[in-house]
Amino acid sequence: MLIEELDMKTVTALIASLEAELGANAVLTAESDLAPFTEDWRGRYKGPAAAVVQPSNTSQVSAVVRLCAAHGVPVLPQGGNTSLCAGAVPANVGLPPVIVNLTRMRRIRHIDAANGSMEVEAGCVLKTIQDAAAAEDRLYAVSLGAEGSCQIGGNLSTNAGGTAVLRYGNTRDNVLGLEVVLADGTVWNGLRALRKDNTGLDLKHLFIGTEGTLGIITAATLKLHPLPVQHALAWFAPVDPAAALHILGMFQAACGSRLSAFEMINRRQLELVIEHVPGRRNPLSELHEWHVLVELGDTHGGEEMAALMQQTLEHAAESGLIHDAVLATNETQRATFWEIRHSVSEANKKGGVGLTTDCAVPVSAVPLFIERATQAVHAIVPGLDIIVVAHLGDGNAHFIPFFTFDAWRQLADRSSMANTLRRCVNDVAHELRGTFSAEHGVGQTGLPEMAHYKSAAELRLMRAVKNALDPHNLFNPGRLLP
Amino acid sequence: MLIEELDMKTVTALIASLEAELGANAVLTAESDLAPFTEDWRGRYKGPAAAVVQPSNTSQVSAVVRLCAAHGVPVLPQGGNTSLCAGAVPANVGLPPVIVNLTRMRRIRHIDAANGSMEVEAGCVLKTIQDAAAAEDRLYAVSLGAEGSCQIGGNLSTNAGGTAVLRYGNTRDNVLGLEVVLADGTVWNGLRALRKDNTGLDLKHLFIGTEGTLGIITAATLKLHPLPVQHALAWFAPVDPAAALHILGMFQAACGSRLSAFEMINRRQLELVIEHVPGRRNPLSELHEWHVLVELGDTHGGEEMAALMQQTLEHAAESGLIHDAVLATNETQRATFWEIRHSVSEANKKGGVGLTTDCAVPVSAVPLFIERATQAVHAIVPGLDIIVVAHLGDGNAHFIPFFTFDAWRQLADRSSMANTLRRCVNDVAHELRGTFSAEHGVGQTGLPEMAHYKSAAELRLMRAVKNALDPHNLFNPGRLLP
Repeated sequence: MLIEELDMKTVTALIASLEAELGANAVLTAESDLAPFTEDWRGRYKGPAAAVVQPSNTSQVSAVVRLCAAHGVPVLPQGGNTSLCAGAVPANVGLPPVIVNLTRMRRIRHIDAANGSMEVEAGCVLKTIQDAAAAEDRLYAVSLGAEGSCQIGGNLSTNAGGTAVLRYGNTRDNVLGLEVVLADGTVWNGLRALRKDNTGLDLKHLFIGTEGTLGIITAATLKLHPLPVQHALAWFAPVDPAAALHILGMFQAACGSRLSAFEMINRRQLELVIEHVPGRRNPLSELHEWHVLVELGDTHGGEEMAALMQQTLEHAAESGLIHDAVLATNETQRATFWEIRHSVSEANKKGGVGLTTDCAVPVSAVPLFIERATQAVHAIVPGLDIIVVAHLGDGNAHFIPFFTFDAWRQLADRSSMANTLRRCVNDVAHELRGTFSAEHGVGQTGLPEMAHYKSAAELRLMRAVKNALDPHNLFNPGRLLP
Repeated sequence: MLIEELDMKTVTALIASLEAELGANAVLTAESDLAPFTEDWRGRYKGPAAAVVQPSNTSQVSAVVRLCAAHGVPVLPQGGNTSLCAGAVPANVGLPPVIVNLTRMRRIRHIDAANGSMEVEAGCVLKTIQDAAAAEDRLYAVSLGAEGSCQIGGNLSTNAGGTAVLRYGNTRDNVLGLEVVLADGTVWNGLRALRKDNTGLDLKHLFIGTEGTLGIITAATLKLHPLPVQHALAWFAPVDPAAALHILGMFQAACGSRLSAFEMINRRQLELVIEHVPGRRNPLSELHEWHVLVELGDTHGGEEMAALMQQTLEHAAESGLIHDAVLATNETQRATFWEIRHSVSEANKKGGVGLTTDCAVPVSAVPLFIERATQAVHAIVPGLDIIVVAHLGDGNAHFIPFFTFDAWRQLADRSSMANTLRRCVNDVAHELRGTFSAEHGVGQTGLPEMAHYKSAAELRLMRAVKNALDPHNLFNPGRLLP
């Protein structure tokens, strides 16, 4: 067909220009070279790409954008490809994009310890950033499961969450400035390192969380905190989620900003971890219905903090809010408790088929959310196992309808079942003024939910900004906005 | 003239429609009624208005916007009219606007203590919000000099700063959701109360800090913190600003997030306070060149915190970084120290003519900023007094060239002198990658600085968003973007 011929000519011309600009070794086109970049890490999603380019600096990114714009070929920026919703790989609709992989841009440009800031390139791996900050006695606070391979550019584009949000906020709250390549190839240098700057629209918020649809983030100035060097950790069994919520309030009142984690899992989740992950054991003598890991952190006063932890738990026990509790008495025990929490993905993958959701509701509504979502799922599949893994302090509950492998295989229409159950859970969150995506983002899997839950006014506002900044729909067309 | 006649007809028709919609008592048109709304609180700026309307609810605001849009009359939203840069009153160029004063929308709609959130209308006075939060043992953290009369809608539109930014961030960091009336009268309900929501562009950031140019904020969901109930306060004299910066680092490392204020003033500022404000005295036995007020706050551990304060100051003294220090030993003394800091505006007004600036630089660059700005000012007016009032922990220094009344009167061209000196101070901040407006906003006085300092890319991005959201330039035309 003529169109395909034209497309092939266009793509060939574009690739020649890209090679001239970046060097041949920075432009991948062979199918075997493309594979790691066009398929998501769990192997569930794969889409075609015109090429993968690996620029080494910001002006090369700018050149790539100009060339793609001139040839009418879309651009998909990519970091560590660790998205949980297929956000980093091409879709199977529309023109195959040029994937701009930022891995080669991984310099830490500058650390200013006295200002609590560091300037990094988009391809820096999160763990590298954490370590570089710690070497200066500072904390880069965002922490997630994928931190060993995810890149800061991806964290910024998806406003990544994780386990430290309760105290330090999301990625958005830990960035001071950005450098971004815009749709016409212009480089916006917004690499400010200021705590205060009230001079009009705060442009960085346009690019944080918009998943590469408005520009390519090439560098960022991150905010650093004093490094907490002392910790106290406990594992306890609250009577129920409402009791856990009450205890959260007690910790907030007593410990203030020392409180750095408040993670809740249910009995089924703990059973799966114990059963499927070698070396994991229940920290308490009995299996209870609900379990909470609570952590305090501070720059000073470790003993006093341990006492505060103990007092707060004793107070909760006296009020009849907990069945049992244990404090970690050393670093090894502390690591052991965290390992249980960190083993949930592995356990669930081995134990059956979980339909992961990522809802957030007001913190005060989490118990009601769990209750209603359980009812809604059981109205569809009576007695189905439910896993709950909640960042309770953030109101973010991963509520996971869970099938045995056998039961899953026997379903007549698995895809329809998955969609039905996820939608019914998201509906409960929506009724409680919550969201279907707390921390994973929209990617490809969340697009139908955007269409279903977002108000007309919101979609109109988002589209207006998209059209204003990327009028030719160059960046990630078809993404984010249904 | 025909145009004026047409305008008068238009205005008359608009006012009739507004009265029909809101009731006559909510539409002010008499010159004497308009005065409090058309002139800034310091009496320096005054501009004409077609009318002042005082809607009582969001749908009335929406109706006002639709009517103004239909008649082609611009809209200027207004809160407590406490702007320091004439942001809340009309300019003397362009069509006289309808001022939408939000004072009647002052309901606290809802407090959810367990979620740490409260929903308030735009006209709520900041102090009312702080008090309502405290009644639930929660903190609404933003605190400023004008808190007794400024309104939350104005705080949001200007991303107000204040004295708690070091620990809790600016207004932007203390809001979870917004309700906004858009340029076509649509009400966007973004009153979420979530800690996490990654579903596309975070729309609230479009309206925070954009000074009413993109929409009218009618309500907000604010973030509340645990209430710190224990404090430790000290006043000390660092050897110089570099020593103060070093001590700031010592406090951050030792005290972490307990550190809630780190305010520095110079000798001239303290002299003026002592001389002109009854009851104010130097907390130390001698007048030193530099003075710092440092405050710690916590939910728990007052005695331990006082010891931490003392140890840190002793450590600084042993390192030769301070001349002298005194700890507040009771609430009265604590209040006395803060009163010195809060008396600077009164003292400076009585003592002479200060040319206030509002620069921020990276925290680590504040000593260099003060040194260079002093040199730059003295190159123009040798030996001129300089006042420094710095939120050192935020990198925000109010650097104030200061004239005696006599010297000011004798100047041939005062306006030109004011512009020259302010610009030379802002230039130094700009060289150090800083900003000319840290916390006051742009208003009318900052417009020339926007044109002078902002990059073409930034102005283009801001204009693109303005055109996308307010294509007919209804909201605050001529503001923010030069």
